Formats: sequence, structure tokens, C-alpha cells
Amino acid sequence: MTLENLSCQKSFGGWHKRYRHRSATLNCDMVFAVYLPPQAEQGQQLPVLYWLSGLTCTDENFMQKAGAHRIAAELGLMIVAPDTSPRGVGVPGDPDGAWDFGLGAGFYVNASEEPWARHYRMHDYVVQELPALIEANFPVSGKRGISGHSMGGHGALVCALRNPGRYQSLSAFAPISNPMACPWGEKAFSRYLGEERSRWREWDASVLIAGAREKLPILVDQGADDDFLATQLKPEVLQAAASAANYPLKLRLQPGYDHSYYFIASFIEDHLRHHAQALGGRR
Amino acid sequence: MTLENLSCQKSFGGWHKRYRHRSATLNCDMVFAVYLPPQAEQGQQLPVLYWLSGLTCTDENFMQKAGAHRIAAELGLMIVAPDTSPRGVGVPGDPDGAWDFGLGAGFYVNASEEPWARHYRMHDYVVQELPALIEANFPVSGKRGISGHSMGGHGALVCALRNPGRYQSLSAFAPISNPMACPWGEKAFSRYLGEERSRWREWDASVLIAGAREKLPILVDQGADDDFLATQLKPEVLQAAASAANYPLKLRLQPGYDHSYYFIASFIEDHLRHHAQALGGRR
Repeated sequence: MTLENLSCQKSFGGWHKRYRHRSATLNCDMVFAVYLPPQAEQGQQLPVLYWLSGLTCTDENFMQKAGAHRIAAELGLMIVAPDTSPRGVGVPGDPDGAWDFGLGAGFYVNASEEPWARHYRMHDYVVQELPALIEANFPVSGKRGISGHSMGGHGALVCALRNPGRYQSLSAFAPISNPMACPWGEKAFSRYLGEERSRWREWDASVLIAGAREKLPILVDQGADDDFLATQLKPEVLQAAASAANYPLKLRLQPGYDHSYYFIASFIEDHLRHHAQALGGRR
Repeated sequence: MTLENLSCQKSFGGWHKRYRHRSATLNCDMVFAVYLPPQAEQGQQLPVLYWLSGLTCTDENFMQKAGAHRIAAELGLMIVAPDTSPRGVGVPGDPDGAWDFGLGAGFYVNASEEPWARHYRMHDYVVQELPALIEANFPVSGKRGISGHSMGGHGALVCALRNPGRYQSLSAFAPISNPMACPWGEKAFSRYLGEERSRWREWDASVLIAGAREKLPILVDQGADDDFLATQLKPEVLQAAASAANYPLKLRLQPGYDHSYYFIASFIEDHLRHHAQALGGRR
């Protein structure tokens, strides 16, 4: 697989780089971004944090707005940010042009329904193809963490819970915690996965956590003044499921914070330290 | 004057807020952003840093991308970010639609030429009207610092050098250091100020520094791999003028860095500490 480098920008002594490649999983060209901390040039093998963004985002939002480079540079943590859906010529979007389905809204599932099934396989892209590409092309240790925001928080939880042993650390910001039972999730799952709700269960963190074989500690931050809290995010459902399963979940409700990157930036340092502690970077 | 609050977002324990108001100076409605650190709710009188952005920006770029809130929250520094030009119905832009003149490109001068003179008075807006508004509506100490990037770095230098006593601290990122003698500046000055070049001298930091009555120490960071360094920015001209005038300028050339917000984010902490030290925030 060939990586085409699109840009290199120095940041906190390391490098923010963007790449394009042909994705066999998604049947389209994809762009992703990496942050390589200064330790990458010092011969070190680095742990990698995969960051999954929310609805409407690309690889750029987190890199530009989260303020994560400073801490990743300190901790020797590489960050990889994929796009949030397949894109490009021939990739179907939402026929209504809505922002909560289709382009920018892949929901990190493998679609079974037409016309989505040929392209919308973001789960396999994030869990398999992208890490294989990263591990073949960058100086990595093989340790992987995963985190994300909103739709990407859902994605991080589901990717880790479905694939025991694949990740060594896990966290989320304002995840869609019970997508089977909220409007965003119902819209996306009914189209990508079909109307049969029982098949949605394997893509819902609050269901998966009940049967988790591996108990990777989860840190979740949630803004208490997030406009989507009650209708779309429902962290209380995840918390109840974790309690029932004796699963280690630390859910922090942050008073006054909303759903934006100002919220993420305010708490990203805690998350990166949570990951570095498990992944073997500097604490 | 009435301030219309557009949004409030919690960030690092403080608040990012946006406001709209009618500007008498610019004859249009203007939007600006403030970052209020947590100390604003604790009854403290805060110093204010005015941040002037570069070409194409609005009040949002710096607030979203610079990573400044974390440090401002620590230092107890309020930040105010105006827009980069007048905007709205009846405000003329560049007839060619170019991004380096007109809307998003006010160059922080007071235009003397038509059709610009009625609206393009960003110097007076930034130096007089906006601080009066801030000082009437927020818990401020009266101490003011000013900084900015590229066109806004030029703006910060010129606003401070033209108005001795008005600011107590000054810095810039990759400023257009000698706008009289670079394509961006020549295009803007010839239209806003007219073709008579002698009248441009009072808007050029490298000229003004030679006659500065007040010697406010200046911190300038410049990326060594900035694509605009040689053609548009020319910090060596500012440095030569400062040396000749025995003016205290600390110019740091940062290897590998470009013109982007990744560069600004990497060094904003040094700048905010430079300002807080002079303005009386916590060090």
C-alpha cells in the first residue's frame, strides 16, 4: 500500500502530517493525519492513540482544535486521526444531504445494506486496515489506544469492546452511549444495518459492555451542559450497564461544559495521560 | 453601546464568549470574542491581551486553534479577539474577491481613500472603540497587551508603536514587518491609503520603531520554514531597525516551523507569559 504525503507541519517539536491512500476496505481514497512526537526522530518505538471524530468531522478537527500535540510531545505518544466516513467519487451520501448520516457520519460500523455495504465499513478500516498501514510505515511499539468524541466516542467504545486484546487503553468524550435508543443511532443503524433491531446490538457499547470478555478501564468525560446529553448521548445507560457487569468505567460529568472542542481541549490532557499510563509512554 | 451575547462556552474553567455590537468607528455590526479566565468570577480585575489575527481570519481562529485558554486560565489573563475587517451589508470588499484585501484583510489601518474610508478604520476600532467597550463591560484592571499573527502581527506592532502609553506589553508571531515593501502591504496600502508612499510610513513597524518614544520590549517568533518569510514578512528589516534605534526586540527564528496555527500553538505559552509578566497577572 502506498502512502501519499500531503503535508508536514512542525508542532511542539514533532510533526503533524497528512496522508492519502487507497483503502481496500472502503473502496475509495482516504485521508488521515498523524502526530509524530519528537521521540519518533530519536529512534523510539511509540505507542499509538487512535482518535475517532464525531459527526461532520474530518481528520483535521481534532488535530487543529484539541490542543493534544503539546501533551503527546511530552508523553511520546503518536496520534492517528482517520476521517469519519468513506468519501469521494461513487461513495453514496445521505440522499437528503443531512449531516447526521452518510458522508462524515460512518458511525464506525460495517454496513450490511445496499447501497452502503460496498463502502461504509469504517469498523474494519479503523480496527484493521489503518493500524496495519501505520504499523508498516511508522516507528511504533505495537501498543494501541483508542478514544473519540460523540459518534467517535461510540466508535472507540465499540471498536475496543468488540476486539478484546487489540487495544490496551480506552477512553471517550461525550460518546453516543446507547445508539440503538437515540435518534442519531436509530437513523444510522436502520440504514447501514437494516431494520432488524436485534442486529444492532453488536454495535452498541451499552449492550457490548454487559458481555465484555476483557475489562479495559474506560475514562469518559461528559459535559453536563451538552445540548445532546439527554436525547442522544445517554451516558447513564452505559454507566448502569457497566455497574451491572462490574466493568471499570470512570464517568465524569463536567459542570458547565458543552459538546464542543473547548470541552475536549479542557480535558484532553487527562485522557492522554490515561492512555500513556497503559500504553507505556512516559507518565 | 449594547453588546449582544451570541454564545457562551466553558473552557478550562473559564468562558469563551462571542458578542455582536454596532461599531460607530466602522459603520457596521462587528463580532468579537473574549476568553474570560476563571479569575473573572472571583472578583479579580484582569489584564487584557488583545489578539489581532491574520488574513482571512475572524474572531474564531485564534480561540479555536491556538491553545491559549489553558495558559490564560492559569495566568488570569483575559483575551479579546476582534474580527480582521469590517463586514456586512454595504461594506465594500475586494472587487476581485481576493483574500488578501478587503473583507478579512483590514490591515489595522485607518483608510483615507474611497470607497474604503467610511468603514476600513480598524486601527481606531482596535485601539479605541473596542477597549472602551471591554473596559465598560468586563472586570478589567486597565492594563493592556497586544499581539497578533502575520497581518495581525503587523497590526499589534503598529498599534503599540503609534500609541505610546496605551499598551504595557507587546509581541507578535510572524508579523508583516515592513509592509511598505512587500506585495501584501503594497496592495493594501495603495488602496486604503492611496498611492503616495510617504503616507504609508506611519503604518510600517520598521519605520515607526526608529522613532519610538516608548521602548516596550517586543517578543517576536518567526518560523524559519514559513513560505512567506522572504517575500512578505521580512523580520530582518524590523531587527535592523530595532538595532539601529537600540530598541529592545527579541526575535526568535524557530527551525522547521511554518506560518500555521501549529506554529502559534507551539509558542503561545511563551507569549502569554511575556504579557502576563508585564501586565501583572500571575507569572
